[in-house]
Amino acid sequence: MYNCALLKFKDIVRKDGHLTPIEEKIDVPFKIKRIYYITGVAQKSARGFHSHRKLQQALICLHGSLKIRIKNPNEEEIINLNDPSVGLYIGPLVWREMFDFSKGSVLLVVASEHYSEEDYIRDYNLYLNEAKKIFQANPADDSKI
Amino acid sequence: MYNCALLKFKDIVRKDGHLTPIEEKIDVPFKIKRIYYITGVAQKSARGFHSHRKLQQALICLHGSLKIRIKNPNEEEIINLNDPSVGLYIGPLVWREMFDFSKGSVLLVVASEHYSEEDYIRDYNLYLNEAKKIFQANPADDSKI
Repeated sequence: MYNCALLKFKDIVRKDGHLTPIEEKIDVPFKIKRIYYITGVAQKSARGFHSHRKLQQALICLHGSLKIRIKNPNEEEIINLNDPSVGLYIGPLVWREMFDFSKGSVLLVVASEHYSEEDYIRDYNLYLNEAKKIFQANPADDSKI
Repeated sequence: MYNCALLKFKDIVRKDGHLTPIEEKIDVPFKIKRIYYITGVAQKSARGFHSHRKLQQALICLHGSLKIRIKNPNEEEIINLNDPSVGLYIGPLVWREMFDFSKGSVLLVVASEHYSEEDYIRDYNLYLNEAKKIFQANPADDSKI
C-alpha cells in the first residue's frame, strides 16, 4: 500500500533470548529523532485516528498483539502486529487506527521527527481533502504489503 | 554512581493507556542513532557482562521486570527496572550485568552510536585496567542513583 511497508528486522537469537537492533538509516529509512511506546492499553480501546503530514514512523509490537488499520483515499488494509522482529513503516498522509490490543501489549514507535502538533491531521474529512491531492497523482498500489 | 543516572520520562496517561516519549537530546542526553530490544529471555539467564568505551545508553523495561548490576572499580549497585517511565542511563566505562528477567519481560535500549564491536570491552580484567585510569581521576560518587 502506498507509503506503507512491512519491515523485517534482524532477529539475533541466542539460547537465552532474542535481540533486535534498529539502526537509523539502515533498518529504518530515516534518522531516528524520537521514539515512544504505548503500554497499559485497555483491551477494548482504540488509538490513533490521525495522519501525519511529514512524519515517518515504524511501529513494532514488542509484547502481545494488536491490529492497525491503515487507509488512504483509495485503499484500506488491516495489519496484525505480534512479532518484535517485524515493523510497519508508515509514511506521510496515511490514516491509522490501532485496536484489538491484547492484555499487556507493548507498542513501540520509532519516529523521524520531534513531536509537532502541526504535523498531525486529526479530522478525517480534512485528511481526505489533503490526501486526495497526493493520491490522485499516485493511484492505488496493487501490492498488498 | 559515576556515569550512571536514573531518568524519569514523561508518562502521558489517558483513560485507555500510557504513552511515554523519548526525544533525542531532550529526554536522553544524546542523539539516538540506534535502538535495540531484548525479548524472550529465559528466566535464569543473565546478559550483558561488558562495558563500552564511548557508547551512551538508556535502558528501559517496557514489560515485566529485570535487574541490572552496574559496577566500576570503586562502586557497585543493583537497579530494579520495572516501570516504562523510568530509564537507567549508562555512560562509558561502566560494567553491566542484567539478570532476574521476569517471564515475558521486554528490555528496550536507546543508544548514542551505531553498533561497533570495537567499542565493547568483554573481558572484566581488561575493563578494570581501562576503567582504573579514568576512575582514579574521578573518585567514587557518594550519591546513590
